[in-house]
Amino acid sequence: MYTRLQNGYRPPSAIFGHADAGAFAVDSNTSMPLGPQRAPFEVMTTAQIEICPRETAVATMHALVYHGPGKPSWELHRRPVLQGPDDAIIRVTTSTICGTDLHILKGDLPAVTEGRILGHEGIGVVDEVGAAVSTFRKGDKVLISCVTACAKCDLCRKQMYSHCRNGGWILGNTIDGTQAEYVRIPYADTSLYPLPSDANEETAVMLSDILPTGFECGVLNGKVSPGDTIAIVGAGPVGLAALLTAQFYSPAAIISIDLDDNRLQVAKSFGATALINSAAGNAIERVMELTHGEGVDVAIEAVGMPATFDICQGILAAGGHLANIGVHGKPVLLHMEKLWDRNATLTTRLVDTATLPMLLKAVESGRLQPGKLVTHRFAFDDILKAYETFGDAAKHAALKVVLASRMQ
Amino acid sequence: MYTRLQNGYRPPSAIFGHADAGAFAVDSNTSMPLGPQRAPFEVMTTAQIEICPRETAVATMHALVYHGPGKPSWELHRRPVLQGPDDAIIRVTTSTICGTDLHILKGDLPAVTEGRILGHEGIGVVDEVGAAVSTFRKGDKVLISCVTACAKCDLCRKQMYSHCRNGGWILGNTIDGTQAEYVRIPYADTSLYPLPSDANEETAVMLSDILPTGFECGVLNGKVSPGDTIAIVGAGPVGLAALLTAQFYSPAAIISIDLDDNRLQVAKSFGATALINSAAGNAIERVMELTHGEGVDVAIEAVGMPATFDICQGILAAGGHLANIGVHGKPVLLHMEKLWDRNATLTTRLVDTATLPMLLKAVESGRLQPGKLVTHRFAFDDILKAYETFGDAAKHAALKVVLASRMQ
Repeated sequence: MYTRLQNGYRPPSAIFGHADAGAFAVDSNTSMPLGPQRAPFEVMTTAQIEICPRETAVATMHALVYHGPGKPSWELHRRPVLQGPDDAIIRVTTSTICGTDLHILKGDLPAVTEGRILGHEGIGVVDEVGAAVSTFRKGDKVLISCVTACAKCDLCRKQMYSHCRNGGWILGNTIDGTQAEYVRIPYADTSLYPLPSDANEETAVMLSDILPTGFECGVLNGKVSPGDTIAIVGAGPVGLAALLTAQFYSPAAIISIDLDDNRLQVAKSFGATALINSAAGNAIERVMELTHGEGVDVAIEAVGMPATFDICQGILAAGGHLANIGVHGKPVLLHMEKLWDRNATLTTRLVDTATLPMLLKAVESGRLQPGKLVTHRFAFDDILKAYETFGDAAKHAALKVVLASRMQ
Repeated sequence: MYTRLQNGYRPPSAIFGHADAGAFAVDSNTSMPLGPQRAPFEVMTTAQIEICPRETAVATMHALVYHGPGKPSWELHRRPVLQGPDDAIIRVTTSTICGTDLHILKGDLPAVTEGRILGHEGIGVVDEVGAAVSTFRKGDKVLISCVTACAKCDLCRKQMYSHCRNGGWILGNTIDGTQAEYVRIPYADTSLYPLPSDANEETAVMLSDILPTGFECGVLNGKVSPGDTIAIVGAGPVGLAALLTAQFYSPAAIISIDLDDNRLQVAKSFGATALINSAAGNAIERVMELTHGEGVDVAIEAVGMPATFDICQGILAAGGHLANIGVHGKPVLLHMEKLWDRNATLTTRLVDTATLPMLLKAVESGRLQPGKLVTHRFAFDDILKAYETFGDAAKHAALKVVLASRMQ
C-alpha cells in the first residue's frame, strides 16, 4: 500500500542498524537503540522454530520482522507453509519498500502486530501450490499484487479487490509479507500474475503497488482525458507513478507541484510540462495564473495532508475532478460553500490492482517504463540500509529502493 | 436554483403583507414591519415608468421586486423588451417559489441587487421573439429553464449549461426573473423548451428547476443503479424530487431521512422504503443497522448543512457515492482519515437542466408525476401570501407553491 512520506519525518535510527538475528533493545528514555542485542521476548529462537516436527533446518528463512515501533529486524524466521488449498508459497526474488512500511515502523498502523513480516510488493518464483491452485505451477515467475483477492465475494466481483471480504491489503499487515525469502500468498490464482521468466524484475516490482496506485486512484479516478490540464500535487513515487500513467491519456498540460526541487526536476524528466515549488505558499495562485483563471480539469492529491488537499480543492475548474491518492491521518476542511455549484467530483480509493494485466502489457510493449522510479538497489541482507535510504528520501534523492534476494 | 430552507428559519413578516404598489417600511430595531407604506426611495412610480417615450400604459406589468433584505414587493414595473436578437419575451402564466428566493430575501445572495425581479421558474406563452430566434414563435407555450444557456461557449458544449459563460443561473439573480407577468429570456432557442398547448402547467413548472436538480445533482451524479440501497437526507422538495427520479433506476431500497415526520410520510407515499427521523441524532447508526453494517451505495445530500453532510459521509458503503445537492454556506469537515480508502465518490453540481427533454417525455408518458410536489396554489396577486406559506413550510405542510397568472 502506498502511504505518504510525511514531510520532516525521519525514521528512528533503530531501524537502520543491522541485526541479522536479533531485535534492538531501546533506551526507554530516548527511544534510541542501544545497539544490536538479542531481545529475548521478541525473537523466535532456532529451538522454538524446530519444535514443529515437520520443520527442518531448511524450513527457515530470513525476513524483515516488525518488533514494535522503531524495531525492525532482519532475522531467521520459520518459513511459511501452505495453510489452505488456494495458497501458494513464493520464493521472493525481488521486493521493495513502501511508504506504508515506514508508517508501520512509526507505529501508525496498530493493526500490524509485533512479529509480523513486513512488505506487500514482490516478484518471485512459485515454490509450492495448494491443491486448488490451477493457474500457477512450481517454477513459474510471478508478480505479487499488494492486494489479495478471493475473486468470489461480492466486492471482488465488482473488481473492488481492495475491499475483498477475505483478503484486501493483508500482506505485511495482518498476515506475513514479502520482505522475506518466502511468502505465503492466499488465493494465489487471483492474487498473483504471471511474468515471463526473463522479465525485468525491478521494473515489474513497480507494478505490485505503486504503479496501479497512481494509475487507478489518480489517473482513472480523475478521468484524465486528452487535452486536459492536470495538476499532480506531490512528486514522490506515487505522484510520479500518476504522472507516468496519466500520459496514457495525452493530457495537454501536466503541472507538478512539490516542495522538493530535486523531485520536481525528476517530474520534468518524466513528462511534467510545468513545475511549481509550493514552499512559497502560492501554489494555488500560480496554477490559476498558468490556467488563465480557469483551474485544472484534474487535480491529483498524492501526498495525504490537509495542505496538499487544500491546493487541490483550490485549483479545480468547473466540472473538475479531485482524485485523492494520499493516505490521510486526519480530516480536511472541505470548502463546500465554494464547491457545491462547481460540478466537481472528489474520489478516494484503495488500489484494487484491477489494472495489473493492462499495466503489464504496457510495460511489455515499452510504452510504460516504471523502472525509472528505481533509484537505489540493495541486497535483501542490506534491507535495513535500504530502509534508512528510503526513510530519508530527500537526503538520498531516493524514489523507489529495490531489494534483491541472494537466491535469484 | 434550489437552495435549502434552513432549519428554524422564519422569513421576516415583512414579506408576508400585501402591498400592491409599495414596499414595507421596517422598524430598524426589530426588523419587523410597521405596515404597508409607500417607500419613496424604492418604488418606481407610474410617472417614472412613463418617462420612456416608447412605453405606454400597456407596457407595464406586475412583478415581485426585491427591495433589499426582507423587502419584496408585488408592484407595477416596466415590461421587459427585447435587448438582443436571441431574446424572447414570455408572458408568464405559471411560476413558483424556490428556496433560493427565500435566501435572497434574507440577504444571503449579495449579487442580487435592489430592484431585481425574482424568480427563475416558469411556464408561459411566447409574446415576442428577436430576429435570431428560430425555434419559437409568438403564441408557443414554453417551459422556462432556470438556467440560461448560450449553447455556444465551451462549457455549454460540454452540456454544463449551469456554467455557461454568457448565462447560467441569471434569472431572478443578475437579470429580472419569472415572478412577473412578463420576462425576457436571453438565448431563447436554447433556454426555453416547447410544451404542448394543453400541458398541465403546474406539473410542467416543476421541471424548471426542482425536478432536474434532484435528478441531475442527486440521482445522476449519485449513479443510482438497479438493486442499490440509497439514502436521501432531506425530504423537502428537492429531496423528494430526487426520490421521485431515483425510481427511474429501480433501487432496491430508498431510505428517507428528515427531521419532519410529515415530510417523511410524504416521502413514504412517494416511494421511500424506510424512514428515519434524524431528530434523535442516531441516523447513522440506524442506517448501518438497516444495511447490516454495510452502508448505502448512494447517499444524496438534499439539505446543505454540516450535520446532514455528516450523515451522508458516515453511511457510505465501500464504493459508495455521496451526491451533494444542498447549497452550503460554510465548509464541512470531510473525514478523509476514514474515507481515503473507501473507493468513495463525492459530487457537487449546479443543475444544468440538460435532462429537461428527457424529463418532459417522462412526464408526458405518466412515468413521472412531479405534480405531486404541489401542495398550495395562489394567484400571482397573492404572491406575498405564497411566500408566507412557503417560508413557513413546516407549519403549512408546504412543498411547492404554484403561482398562476390572471391571464392564462
